[in-house]
Amino acid sequence: MTDRTAEPHSTEGAYVESGAEFTRDTHYIPTRITADGRDGYPVEPGRYRLVAARACPWANRAIIVRRLLGLEDVLSMGLCGPTHDKRSWTFDLDPGGLDPVLKIPRLQDAYFARFPDYSRGITVPAIVDVPTGQVVTNDYPQITLDLSSEWTRYQREGAPDLYPEPLRDEIDEVADLVFRDVNNGVYRCGFAGSQDAYDSAYDRLFARLDWLEDRLTDRRFLVGDTITEADVRLFTTLARFDAVYHGHFKCNRNKLDEMPVLWGYARDLFQTPGFGDTIDFTQIKQHYYIVHTDINPTGIVPKGPDLSGWLEPHGREQLGGRPFGDGTPPPPPKPGEDVPAGHGA
Amino acid sequence: MTDRTAEPHSTEGAYVESGAEFTRDTHYIPTRITADGRDGYPVEPGRYRLVAARACPWANRAIIVRRLLGLEDVLSMGLCGPTHDKRSWTFDLDPGGLDPVLKIPRLQDAYFARFPDYSRGITVPAIVDVPTGQVVTNDYPQITLDLSSEWTRYQREGAPDLYPEPLRDEIDEVADLVFRDVNNGVYRCGFAGSQDAYDSAYDRLFARLDWLEDRLTDRRFLVGDTITEADVRLFTTLARFDAVYHGHFKCNRNKLDEMPVLWGYARDLFQTPGFGDTIDFTQIKQHYYIVHTDINPTGIVPKGPDLSGWLEPHGREQLGGRPFGDGTPPPPPKPGEDVPAGHGA
Repeated sequence: MTDRTAEPHSTEGAYVESGAEFTRDTHYIPTRITADGRDGYPVEPGRYRLVAARACPWANRAIIVRRLLGLEDVLSMGLCGPTHDKRSWTFDLDPGGLDPVLKIPRLQDAYFARFPDYSRGITVPAIVDVPTGQVVTNDYPQITLDLSSEWTRYQREGAPDLYPEPLRDEIDEVADLVFRDVNNGVYRCGFAGSQDAYDSAYDRLFARLDWLEDRLTDRRFLVGDTITEADVRLFTTLARFDAVYHGHFKCNRNKLDEMPVLWGYARDLFQTPGFGDTIDFTQIKQHYYIVHTDINPTGIVPKGPDLSGWLEPHGREQLGGRPFGDGTPPPPPKPGEDVPAGHGA
Repeated sequence: MTDRTAEPHSTEGAYVESGAEFTRDTHYIPTRITADGRDGYPVEPGRYRLVAARACPWANRAIIVRRLLGLEDVLSMGLCGPTHDKRSWTFDLDPGGLDPVLKIPRLQDAYFARFPDYSRGITVPAIVDVPTGQVVTNDYPQITLDLSSEWTRYQREGAPDLYPEPLRDEIDEVADLVFRDVNNGVYRCGFAGSQDAYDSAYDRLFARLDWLEDRLTDRRFLVGDTITEADVRLFTTLARFDAVYHGHFKCNRNKLDEMPVLWGYARDLFQTPGFGDTIDFTQIKQHYYIVHTDINPTGIVPKGPDLSGWLEPHGREQLGGRPFGDGTPPPPPKPGEDVPAGHGA
């Protein structure tokens, strides 16, 4: 997912609207890929391509869930580079600047293939129907839930249940609070157009982080005793906190690594196969500091912070919990899908 | 002291020159106020006015030294507000926007009174000759040394010797390294016009901080066993490190409070009368985040960081040392010269 400036007709550098709060456009293409194909897009191995970007926290969710569930061989993945231009995320990391499967240079080409007049943001994650080259959906919260619930037939043996029926209400409830105050809250800090809007977003963010610090003190995961969708959603924001949100978005009451419980929780997940091995800190920093020209006009990317702490022992095992429930961890990333050396922690 | 943009004819927002390193203009008005008056300005109680700004690290040095030496009653002080405009530091905090002694709204008026065509930056600290309203000097490194060496006759009983003869070479040597890599180094990071210039400044800054961390491990102060000019000069940068340099200037390998020795050293000084009681974190944050529109166009001032740690025990007494040597700490700030409640740690 990108933000306002990724809209094809918006002005570059328009993340911040002076005097206003940051308001995220939460209207996405609602088409779903389901087991029964009721929207015209049945789950089918090899038919779709997930387009993501390692930089983006919303796309990162889908990268993690696809890996945890072992869907790599049935749902291929294309990766956009970290620094989209004002028109679209692009496949600038691929040879010739073309996605090797879709053969397009810009993600917007898949959007326009289906909706020639598409006027909203060109966002990742998106799932594209490979035979037609048309985008199916960019509805990121639904995408990960459907990978869990609709693609069950093709998940690997030992795949965890990230959205277990009996816990769905609680997962939805926690995820909603985390979305409003944390996932989107950091953007509300960074893109605030007035001091009041920033102050208010900052207070909500840190009040929620304090709430999470408390909630996670004696439970290893957010809901139940296994990793769920709720953890995936919180994790992708926490992974970016000290690297970009603390400085670039002024979320600076403290760094994540100064909140002992949340920092232990975040490291626990980071060190769990399927989480940390999707994190590319280099691309993350490039994305935020280069793309948001209206809050970092120089485009200089900080060298810090020191990220080595992510690999330090977290001690959270003593809280119990069974990360994968009755399942197993995923194997290492497929060749070609691993984070480049030097880009991780 | 301000930086390039304070030059009367510069364009607002010109701190960063694209593609270039930040180069500080280090040419100041060299006139000195001396005991023998050889430049025409003899030390004389009541004749001069120190113009400073709490926000500015270079002016902060003079505020500290004046207080440590007890010169308040012989050298009055005017304080500019934190957010100068492109023309000049201003007396916007004073009733009617006029300095109550000099009766001018802008510090530049004192510069132009002496040099009608003055073309360099209008910087603090500056010392103004009250009878003529003319600036005498803005040569900040010389100002503090002269307060120590030329104003001895008027210093309070128990004033420390901040520039003791036998240690001057070592003080000068350390201060020079600290200036190049730390005091000015943070600006070289923040105002870098290219990634290479930033990367290089960052490496030098943190290499020097590591060197200081090592040097101060088993010695309480930088030179000798008492506070000296060298400590004053390092302190005013360290006091601003986590509040502004870490995020705003991208000096973010780590926060100061993650370097145990330097953080203990900084807190030791902060809690020493004459140091921390001159620090106005509110004005410091306002200055950097509001004035530097080319690196923070929104002008939003971060609420963080949590500053309460400055008052925590530092444990440095066990290293020995005699902060004031054979002298004594200064009394509390004079009424009217104290930092407003809520602006400190």
